[in-house]
Amino acid sequence: MPFIQFDGGQMSKEKKAELVAKLTETAQEVLGIPSQAFSVLIRENSMDNIGQGGKLLSELHK
Amino acid sequence: MPFIQFDGGQMSKEKKAELVAKLTETAQEVLGIPSQAFSVLIRENSMDNIGQGGKLLSELHK
Amino acid sequence: MPFIQFDGGQMSKEKKAELVAKLTETAQEVLGIPSQAFSVLIRENSMDNIGQGGKLLSELHK
Amino acid sequence: MPFIQFDGGQMSKEKKAELVAKLTETAQEVLGIPSQAFSVLIRENSMDNIGQGGKLLSELHK
Amino acid sequence: MPFIQFDGGQMSKEKKAELVAKLTETAQEVLGIPSQAFSVLIRENSMDNIGQGGKLLSELHK
Amino acid sequence: MPFIQFDGGQMSKEKKAELVAKLTETAQEVLGIPSQAFSVLIRENSMDNIGQGGKLLSELHK
Repeated sequence: MPFIQFDGGQMSKEKKAELVAKLTETAQEVLGIPSQAFSVLIRENSMDNIGQGGKLLSELHK
Repeated sequence: MPFIQFDGGQMSKEKKAELVAKLTETAQEVLGIPSQAFSVLIRENSMDNIGQGGKLLSELHK
Repeated sequence: MPFIQFDGGQMSKEKKAELVAKLTETAQEVLGIPSQAFSVLIRENSMDNIGQGGKLLSELHK
Repeated sequence: MPFIQFDGGQMSKEKKAELVAKLTETAQEVLGIPSQAFSVLIRENSMDNIGQGGKLLSELHK
Repeated sequence: MPFIQFDGGQMSKEKKAELVAKLTETAQEVLGIPSQAFSVLIRENSMDNIGQGGKLLSELHK
Repeated sequence: MPFIQFDGGQMSKEKKAELVAKLTETAQEVLGIPSQAFSVLIRENSMDNIGQGGKLLSELHK
């Protein structure tokens, strides 16, 4: 703990590594908790599975 | 916000679109919050990954 | 299963009952799954704990 | 309810069945709630999508 | 990782300690992952915030 | 979307505002997605409700 769950779209392994490193560094700086205590879980979702304002992102971004 | 996470089984894109549209409309009517504020995230799970009463759904529905 | 997690603000018990009843009914109609199979979990959050576009809702709605 | 979400790595169907059976049995014994009331959801994640201490597990376990 | 999220009702600190100890032990035995790797998060919910089959648990258990 | 769920301990409103601002800024820089698209949800948990390695944090940090 702390535990960060990040739900977004598909991304490359490089972006995942960067996201994990920088979210952890940011939260560690704000809260003063050692970076070793942080877990991050990235969930990659299809634009068909996310709705905003009642519409799928895959329809909104066509 | 509000944010709705829906964990169910596999479904077609048409069902996802209908689910997002109708869950958003329903919640908007109950709460009086504009539909633009709602996000919905559909997670599709295998029946091998869901347990009910200690048994996998894939075993219960065989 | 299915399992619906609803993250929103504070609401009355009457609104919770209505939200649970109507989200379940809506999802049951879309997916053709018996309403008995649905669980709904409502989480009530402070506007101080939700951020949109980098700002707390409690600041945005002041 | 209760509802258990288990985020881990990939596992076989046999391990999933065992995990669901034993987590349910354990929680039922601790809380005295009938096992029929428990749902378990297993999410299998890539080691590329999990960070610990700012690093991906896929890098830490290389 | 693994990460276990447990959503249930209110419980005593003793029950929480027992639940964390035994869920971790159980999962560790099934998966062969050291217990140090496990995080457990217990969320306590009001019976007014949980719906089953379209009804609040607080109404079903009256 | 993206949607960030942050589970940690209790924190002040100032820390929440800073956390929301900086996590959003960080993720926006890594992914190149406009900050307006990000939602952040902070959940504050008691040290009695979090287990690490089979023990409650409230016991580990005594």
